[in-house]
Amino acid sequence: MRLDRLTILGVGLLGGSIGLACRAAASDVEIIGYAHRPQTLDLAREAGAIDWGYADPGAAVQGADLVILCTPVSLFQNMLRQIAPALKAGAIITDVGSTKRSIVRLAGEILPPGVHFVGSHPMAGSEKRGVEFARADLFQHAQCLVTPTAQTPAPALESVEAFWRMLGMRIARMTPEDHDRLLGAISHLPHAAAAALVAMQDDAALELAGKGFLDTTRIAGGDGALWRDILLDNRDNLRAALSALRAQLDTLDQLLEDPAGAALAQWLDRAALRREALLRKKLLEISTD
Amino acid sequence: MRLDRLTILGVGLLGGSIGLACRAAASDVEIIGYAHRPQTLDLAREAGAIDWGYADPGAAVQGADLVILCTPVSLFQNMLRQIAPALKAGAIITDVGSTKRSIVRLAGEILPPGVHFVGSHPMAGSEKRGVEFARADLFQHAQCLVTPTAQTPAPALESVEAFWRMLGMRIARMTPEDHDRLLGAISHLPHAAAAALVAMQDDAALELAGKGFLDTTRIAGGDGALWRDILLDNRDNLRAALSALRAQLDTLDQLLEDPAGAALAQWLDRAALRREALLRKKLLEISTD
Repeated sequence: MRLDRLTILGVGLLGGSIGLACRAAASDVEIIGYAHRPQTLDLAREAGAIDWGYADPGAAVQGADLVILCTPVSLFQNMLRQIAPALKAGAIITDVGSTKRSIVRLAGEILPPGVHFVGSHPMAGSEKRGVEFARADLFQHAQCLVTPTAQTPAPALESVEAFWRMLGMRIARMTPEDHDRLLGAISHLPHAAAAALVAMQDDAALELAGKGFLDTTRIAGGDGALWRDILLDNRDNLRAALSALRAQLDTLDQLLEDPAGAALAQWLDRAALRREALLRKKLLEISTD
Repeated sequence: MRLDRLTILGVGLLGGSIGLACRAAASDVEIIGYAHRPQTLDLAREAGAIDWGYADPGAAVQGADLVILCTPVSLFQNMLRQIAPALKAGAIITDVGSTKRSIVRLAGEILPPGVHFVGSHPMAGSEKRGVEFARADLFQHAQCLVTPTAQTPAPALESVEAFWRMLGMRIARMTPEDHDRLLGAISHLPHAAAAALVAMQDDAALELAGKGFLDTTRIAGGDGALWRDILLDNRDNLRAALSALRAQLDTLDQLLEDPAGAALAQWLDRAALRREALLRKKLLEISTD
């Protein structure tokens, strides 16, 4: 893919960071933004995240080689309908959504022949929102999950992967179905569990919260409406993950029966060791990037 | 209390940090350590956490004005039996255990008349272990929960509180029963839930873990045997907290039924706002210390 013009639909934290990172890596790309509110486009232009912006998605994607959907997941359908007639032949479309089955299905239904959709999930972000928190290095050393299907042309897939690599990311390919199942367990469930851990506390207990509790519940600090959309979109997998968590809590309840607690210590140690191995692996990935 | 001699029973991360912090705040106090292994005493002396050490708890507490139990909770009973005959009249005993009902009961049963026990839970620490990680500032700005009973003499209580204040801590008083109930919810349950969140993942999902998952499960990185003792010692309260968490997970399951998700967004937002208020309060406490 020759990338002369990039269009970012939604210039919040993620979209704005894509603009900054792309400009840092490839200064000759023209970067166009779309946002619902004119003030957002002004902020994005002032931050250097876009060259110019449109309040109309169709106008924003005209002539674009690559279009990235960065709005909340719940707006994807409407966004695809608005841009479909305006895309140039051969345009490549991707997204940054936290779920992949629904957007892949919608793209197949809505986009015209001759343009190519490849689902992406760059695993970077923050509980902060807004282009004022955008950072050119947000994607460095992070992982991007890319979810081709049997219909995805290899050149479009490779172009999208090359774009994320240019922003400093490592790529993992998987099906949209595997993505949503795995993320339901490793991301959406922890978010829900963190919210539940806050919700169950009474005020007197919250008074005694230490650093451990604040860390454990950090991801519960995100925007409720955004996360509602993600959790609802991946409801079946989230429910399966909730069942698996409940089964582990039942195991714990049983382990508490034995006053000697040998099996309880093993259960705790096994979790500590798996987490430690994971942390070592992540640090190694960063150091060898 | 005139504090000429302090004895620290167990010179690991917490005990060692108490030694360093006490020396920094009151350089004329003689600091004696006990550890099971002679190498640990050598390390503690080299680190400057103690003046000298004994491998016998009875010898270590002789002449001490203040004795602090810093061994794992499961060793408290044995430790109290060993020091009881060697304590001087008027000695004050406290501890750093994460549970309070059992140690308060044991102290009442085992310690002789004329010495005074006051339960403490300095809420500072780390998932690291060992005197090599001890820090003089570990207790700065942190909260110390002190659990007197109707039998606790006011001067002993005030002496223990003054000691923790000298190390930079804020004090909150409560009954041992309230302590264990509140900590079961705000500390022991999150630890157990973090371990369950790791335990339920399959390896393919763990591969995709991001910073959010690592933060959420950080407290699951602690030592299994130590946490087994804490969870077993507070089993009744932990089970009640587990039930409350399960009830919130059931609520979530029900909220997922409604495709519009207004109540789900509210549930998520409420958790985010409560956590944010908590964070603001903690930051304010530190800034006004």
